[in-house]
Amino acid sequence: MSAPSPSAAAALLPALKFDRDGLVAAVAQQHDTGEVLMLAWMNLKAVEETLATGQVTYFSRSREKLWRKGETSGQAQRLVVLRVDCDGDALLLLVDQTGAACHTGTRSCFFRAVRDGKLEKVAVPIVDPKTLYGAEA
Amino acid sequence: MSAPSPSAAAALLPALKFDRDGLVAAVAQQHDTGEVLMLAWMNLKAVEETLATGQVTYFSRSREKLWRKGETSGQAQRLVVLRVDCDGDALLLLVDQTGAACHTGTRSCFFRAVRDGKLEKVAVPIVDPKTLYGAEA
Repeated sequence: MSAPSPSAAAALLPALKFDRDGLVAAVAQQHDTGEVLMLAWMNLKAVEETLATGQVTYFSRSREKLWRKGETSGQAQRLVVLRVDCDGDALLLLVDQTGAACHTGTRSCFFRAVRDGKLEKVAVPIVDPKTLYGAEA
Repeated sequence: MSAPSPSAAAALLPALKFDRDGLVAAVAQQHDTGEVLMLAWMNLKAVEETLATGQVTYFSRSREKLWRKGETSGQAQRLVVLRVDCDGDALLLLVDQTGAACHTGTRSCFFRAVRDGKLEKVAVPIVDPKTLYGAEA
């Protein structure tokens, strides 16, 4: 990737449209396999910190504070490339995910699918969720 | 995929958590290449219609109505698999995208990336946006 850079935020911010809560949606995708890992939210500070450090930081809507992914669980995301969509209210984060993105211990949060008229689990945990400190993912 | 099925919505709906506007986020990903195409929104009716018809329908927040992807632009999305995330407020739609997902004519709406401290276009239009009827994508 580009080296982590505080100046990158200055280049990006004019293109962003934060919502009424000051957030943009952020989709995390494993950079080499293409697997979509999760969808979360970023405020301005989270965007700035992610670009400055190269470690993905979200804004937790439930805890109302910055959420440095993996800080307590160890399941961190290293930023590889940050993309922005046409209208500036969504980001695509190409990342290198350590372990499981999901607090349930699955690699991806999207582990359930509609199949034959039923909602079924299509992935199993790769990490024991008990080791991930509850809700932190 | 599972054949389009109205009953699939009944299986899915208990797992969904619509936001205060009655919406869930929906990420569309090309099913075979893994390319993330766009992020949009669905209300209950859009989810039901998508599962019933196999053609992806969103809810347009700007137009405040159902948005049958490709209905006017021709750039439709056929649903292959619908997944839901751990907390039920985001969907991952594995789709087969006809042409360009973006109203700008690019395959993906995420055609800009931060590189070397600058925001740069990393994809070019594959369809002339003038043929896509303006804002409809």
